[in-house]
Amino acid sequence: MKTIDVCLSPELMHLYDVRDRTVVVVDILRATSCMVTAFAHGVASITPFANLEACRAMKAKGYITSGERDGKKVEGFDKGNSPFEYMGDQVRDKKIAFTTTNGTQAIEKAKGAREIIIGSFLNLTSVARYLLLNEHNTLVVCAGWKGKVNLEDTLFAGALVEKLKDYIGPDCDAPLAAQYLYNLAKGDMVKFLSNSSHFNRLAKLGIEKDIAYCVTPDQFHVLPRLKGEALVI
Amino acid sequence: MKTIDVCLSPELMHLYDVRDRTVVVVDILRATSCMVTAFAHGVASITPFANLEACRAMKAKGYITSGERDGKKVEGFDKGNSPFEYMGDQVRDKKIAFTTTNGTQAIEKAKGAREIIIGSFLNLTSVARYLLLNEHNTLVVCAGWKGKVNLEDTLFAGALVEKLKDYIGPDCDAPLAAQYLYNLAKGDMVKFLSNSSHFNRLAKLGIEKDIAYCVTPDQFHVLPRLKGEALVI
Repeated sequence: MKTIDVCLSPELMHLYDVRDRTVVVVDILRATSCMVTAFAHGVASITPFANLEACRAMKAKGYITSGERDGKKVEGFDKGNSPFEYMGDQVRDKKIAFTTTNGTQAIEKAKGAREIIIGSFLNLTSVARYLLLNEHNTLVVCAGWKGKVNLEDTLFAGALVEKLKDYIGPDCDAPLAAQYLYNLAKGDMVKFLSNSSHFNRLAKLGIEKDIAYCVTPDQFHVLPRLKGEALVI
Repeated sequence: MKTIDVCLSPELMHLYDVRDRTVVVVDILRATSCMVTAFAHGVASITPFANLEACRAMKAKGYITSGERDGKKVEGFDKGNSPFEYMGDQVRDKKIAFTTTNGTQAIEKAKGAREIIIGSFLNLTSVARYLLLNEHNTLVVCAGWKGKVNLEDTLFAGALVEKLKDYIGPDCDAPLAAQYLYNLAKGDMVKFLSNSSHFNRLAKLGIEKDIAYCVTPDQFHVLPRLKGEALVI
């Protein structure tokens, strides 16, 4: 049986050998939710940057610059980190350079994996289907919050473990913990998350609408993957 | 309100400033369960070692040498890592030098904290009472398994969060996740853990009896703490 494991923080990545694994990077609030939304709306590519200034420099090359630090849009950038900025003509056929506090850092740390795909609740079933037919083991990398574990990324990991349970087995305790938490939360994820620290950090920024959107499963059937330096579908 | 946070793996310790915190180190299966058992049976002191050979050298100084690697007793050591070896005349008034795969490594990483105490289900209420009257914030450090998150240490952290919830608030998402998991598991922790990887790793070593013992709350009222290089009460 193939296996699925969950790395609850990018700071634990060194414990996992990813050379033969498919890595699913997840940052529900909000980087990977934005990415999936953008691809569903026809973006040409998204190039993730860990470094803010490297991202800013892409403006001169015709890219849209996008990103946040500590949840807030970066000054001088074209877009922030709300999925509602990544819809329709705002993104169609465009190239985006993207940097965020956690999500793009997690992608950077995952480089070296056999392949890297982008997960969010918005494309949950697309991710699950892909992993089912894929011949490699899976590692879900939760972006967390500045290295600390967060609930929303853990819930996504748990949703994947739950969906795949008859076909792909948990590799260690972290996927089991995530699965238990998801099964507790799935009836009303917004309510479940309303106690969480990151939720409250973002709620203070007035983005409750983003949060409700980001935990809605299966809005799109796209599967962004890293090809060279850029995400494409 | 004072706060409690949970570090789910010693590999995440660098994210926490522990200089002003009380750190509770927990390694349910089985290092901290052994330590609590030994103090309840009158051991004089337990000196934890991260390094195996440094531990072995203490034999010449009159110490009992104890420890395991990968769950198995170290060759040439007096004792392994079963709590049943730490009862009665086996330990009374003796000094022990102790090294384990995870627990004593976690203690080593926690050095620099304001204070370090030893937690297990066996002394759960003693730990909780101490934290209530203590003026500092708390960080529970789960020993995990070679850096990876495990369920049993997470459940202990959750039990503490649950017990203290009216008086000490969770500092981030990890204590909330631990609390949810504990509340799911508390009706039958052995059953809950029977799916877990570490449980099964140990079950193969024939220590089901140890496991049932190690998840039994409140067998003893002792609170081991690190004083200099040694644990005492």
